[in-house]
Amino acid sequence: MRTLLLVGIGTGNPEHLTVEAINALNQADRLFIPDKGAGKADLADLRREIIARYVTNPSVRQVTYAMPVRDAANPDYAAGVDAWHDAIAERFGALIADIPEGGTGAFLVWGDPGLYDSTLRILERLPQREELTVRVVPGITAIQALTAAHAIPLNRIGEPVHVTTGRRLGPVTEDTVVMLDGRTAFTDADPDLHIFWGAYLGTPDQITIAGRLGDVAQQIIETRKAAREQHGWIMDTYLLRKRD
Amino acid sequence: MRTLLLVGIGTGNPEHLTVEAINALNQADRLFIPDKGAGKADLADLRREIIARYVTNPSVRQVTYAMPVRDAANPDYAAGVDAWHDAIAERFGALIADIPEGGTGAFLVWGDPGLYDSTLRILERLPQREELTVRVVPGITAIQALTAAHAIPLNRIGEPVHVTTGRRLGPVTEDTVVMLDGRTAFTDADPDLHIFWGAYLGTPDQITIAGRLGDVAQQIIETRKAAREQHGWIMDTYLLRKRD
Ligand SMILES: C[S@@+](CC[C@H](N)C(=O)[O-])C[C@H]1O[C@@H](n2cnc3c(N)ncnc32)[C@H](O)[C@@H]1O
Ligand SMILES: C[S@@+](CC[C@H](N)C(=O)[O-])C[C@H]1O[C@@H](n2cnc3c(N)ncnc32)[C@H](O)[C@@H]1O
Repeated sequence: MRTLLLVGIGTGNPEHLTVEAINALNQADRLFIPDKGAGKADLADLRREIIARYVTNPSVRQVTYAMPVRDAANPDYAAGVDAWHDAIAERFGALIADIPEGGTGAFLVWGDPGLYDSTLRILERLPQREELTVRVVPGITAIQALTAAHAIPLNRIGEPVHVTTGRRLGPVTEDTVVMLDGRTAFTDADPDLHIFWGAYLGTPDQITIAGRLGDVAQQIIETRKAAREQHGWIMDTYLLRKRD
Repeated sequence: MRTLLLVGIGTGNPEHLTVEAINALNQADRLFIPDKGAGKADLADLRREIIARYVTNPSVRQVTYAMPVRDAANPDYAAGVDAWHDAIAERFGALIADIPEGGTGAFLVWGDPGLYDSTLRILERLPQREELTVRVVPGITAIQALTAAHAIPLNRIGEPVHVTTGRRLGPVTEDTVVMLDGRTAFTDADPDLHIFWGAYLGTPDQITIAGRLGDVAQQIIETRKAAREQHGWIMDTYLLRKRD
């Protein structure tokens, strides 16, 4: 039996690490670090910074691996993701085979391993899944980073909250968090909604904008475009709320 | 100007504390600790354990305060909550007045300060709100504690998630997290749903049950009742998911 730890590392602030996460990293025989390729160098740097700062156990060995890239040219989106996940599963299988018998490997997972992250699902594809003990260490999500940055409650008193993706954003009937939005889906929403937007949340580059959607949408679009050009990448999240 | 920190402490595991939270607690002139009264002694103990473990700055002063209780006998629920929040605001006002000018006070908030927590909203009632800088430090929520305990993703690939309360649970049309459920609302839901249930998540008393709702509902009801009697209180959360 081998143990695999999926350790949530928060959304870009090394201080998002929990004590449980720090202990988990120090307990691993292998730490698996994706090499996300150019462009997203900041993200790989953050993982390295976290390890440099918190991993004090000298017997922990770091293993960098090349992360397969999705074939964006595949016209069938679902099939493209499926093939990509298979390629990642194969890579994971090789990493896991290198964990000593009875030992522990750890993945550093962005945010929380349960929220819009495929690591858990990819592990289900492994032929050796049955021989693995998988343990998840929760982490701060982009949702908490967003509401903390704006110092706002996520929900209204006793009211529900909807969490969705840019692709799936429909008419906003309740407070809605949008993640994974590459197409600024908020532009189609009711201009009378209130938006709380944030990019690079938790990092020194954090940007927040809030206001009536109709008043700030253009500012967000321009800020987003400029920031993406400057960094080479962007991660943003927002909350759409009916105004009282 | 005074600064107020709302520090998320996670859901019962002292190791849920983030490095940011630990630093925030050590930076406060005053730490405000609610005395939740009998019954919930475990919860007050956890706050004390967190402080004993992580607060190393000797100039931090702990201030215990009696938490006003809601008048459950008030037949008008909303008016009862309103009066209760006013009473808490008054208490908070007195605590804040005791922070040295230019200094910092910190509240230890269960889970994350943005999720089904009233502290931020109560602060809005303070007459001195304008003279306060409020900073939120995110924490692990019961939702992350639940999915980590079950080692499951919260969402299906690219699918939305609904977060609601027991009181507001209606027909389940998408993956739904239920919190604040005093009436085991899941008993009214489709027995063919899959439920992932957890109580005392993150604590040594953590209990989890998962399965087809129709098969495990009775077990959850009985487990919940027995645990509540044993501890004098219970906090539980669950995810309802359409089975594939
Ligand atoms: C693949 S999902 C991973 C989510 C992550 N597991 C979590 O718990 O937040 C990536 C999406 O999360 C959001 N996100 C992650 N980090 C962020 C950050 N630092 N600032 C803003 N949004 C972020 C963005 O919506 C992004 O498209
Ligand atoms: C007033 S809300 C506070 C939520 C908290 N701010 C958070 O971020 O999780 C209390 C509800 O959170 C959930 N909860 C909090 N701690 C929990 C725990 N340790 N185990 C299970 N559920 C918990 C329960 O649904 C409970 O009714």
